[in-house]
Amino acid sequence: MTVEDWPQVWPLIEEVVRAGDTFPYPQDLTQSEARPLWLENGPGGRTSVATEGQLVLGTAKMGRNRPGPGSHVATASYMVASEARGRGIGRALVVDSLDWARAAGFLAMQFNAVVATNRGAIGLYESLGFTVIGTVPRAHRMPSGELVGLSIMHLDL
Amino acid sequence: MTVEDWPQVWPLIEEVVRAGDTFPYPQDLTQSEARPLWLENGPGGRTSVATEGQLVLGTAKMGRNRPGPGSHVATASYMVASEARGRGIGRALVVDSLDWARAAGFLAMQFNAVVATNRGAIGLYESLGFTVIGTVPRAHRMPSGELVGLSIMHLDL
Repeated sequence: MTVEDWPQVWPLIEEVVRAGDTFPYPQDLTQSEARPLWLENGPGGRTSVATEGQLVLGTAKMGRNRPGPGSHVATASYMVASEARGRGIGRALVVDSLDWARAAGFLAMQFNAVVATNRGAIGLYESLGFTVIGTVPRAHRMPSGELVGLSIMHLDL
Repeated sequence: MTVEDWPQVWPLIEEVVRAGDTFPYPQDLTQSEARPLWLENGPGGRTSVATEGQLVLGTAKMGRNRPGPGSHVATASYMVASEARGRGIGRALVVDSLDWARAAGFLAMQFNAVVATNRGAIGLYESLGFTVIGTVPRAHRMPSGELVGLSIMHLDL
């Protein structure tokens, strides 16, 4: 995507962030806070969008997980619009990010904070070969106040 | 510490970062890159120093691990000067950070990237009750080129 696409991407990000149940972002994140968070992915990183005509159905951000001695490991995050779920958009975004990471020479993809109750996302990642390295208990506060785990997931590329 | 202490703290950080075997920071980190990394710890965060007279023997940084729905979990990092190791400085820095985190109302302390070959640090954390949530394989490149794991560690407060 280009920065010009941002006005079409923000409503999708806003929907996911406001729901508060799948992403480790502040539920009251503003558009001006979200923009660098989603678009600035460090050296070599990128943001992708899945579109259907003019509609943005999903988006992903990807880059290195850490600088220096950890820069051979990539990370990524994905969002799919609620009305577009169940159509394979998430899978296409993940596969595209894995292709990007392999082409960029990364040795692995790591997710740092997958909300442990987000079974759809975890099942998708597992179907692509990811494993759960571990789950930090009670690390994510749901909008209900309930504390649920955050899982670290990993795939060798 | 105060920002005025920085000139005394940087040589210790430089020693640890240049060694490259215990910290997930770029080995060639510059002083101007290190300063915000070590001193800016987000809302409510702080940097501590362990001193003996004018000598800085160790330093720690601490703050929330994530904003928003993860802001009830703290994180911290610690460095001890090589000539001061084996004297309990590391333990004192960790205990102080746990006291700080409890007083600030955090529910847990999480370390995101403990180099898995750093047995001294892991043993210290385990002796204080931390557990290894999981270890991301081959996530840290040692100066030798060898890839070693990065462990996620956690303690309920």
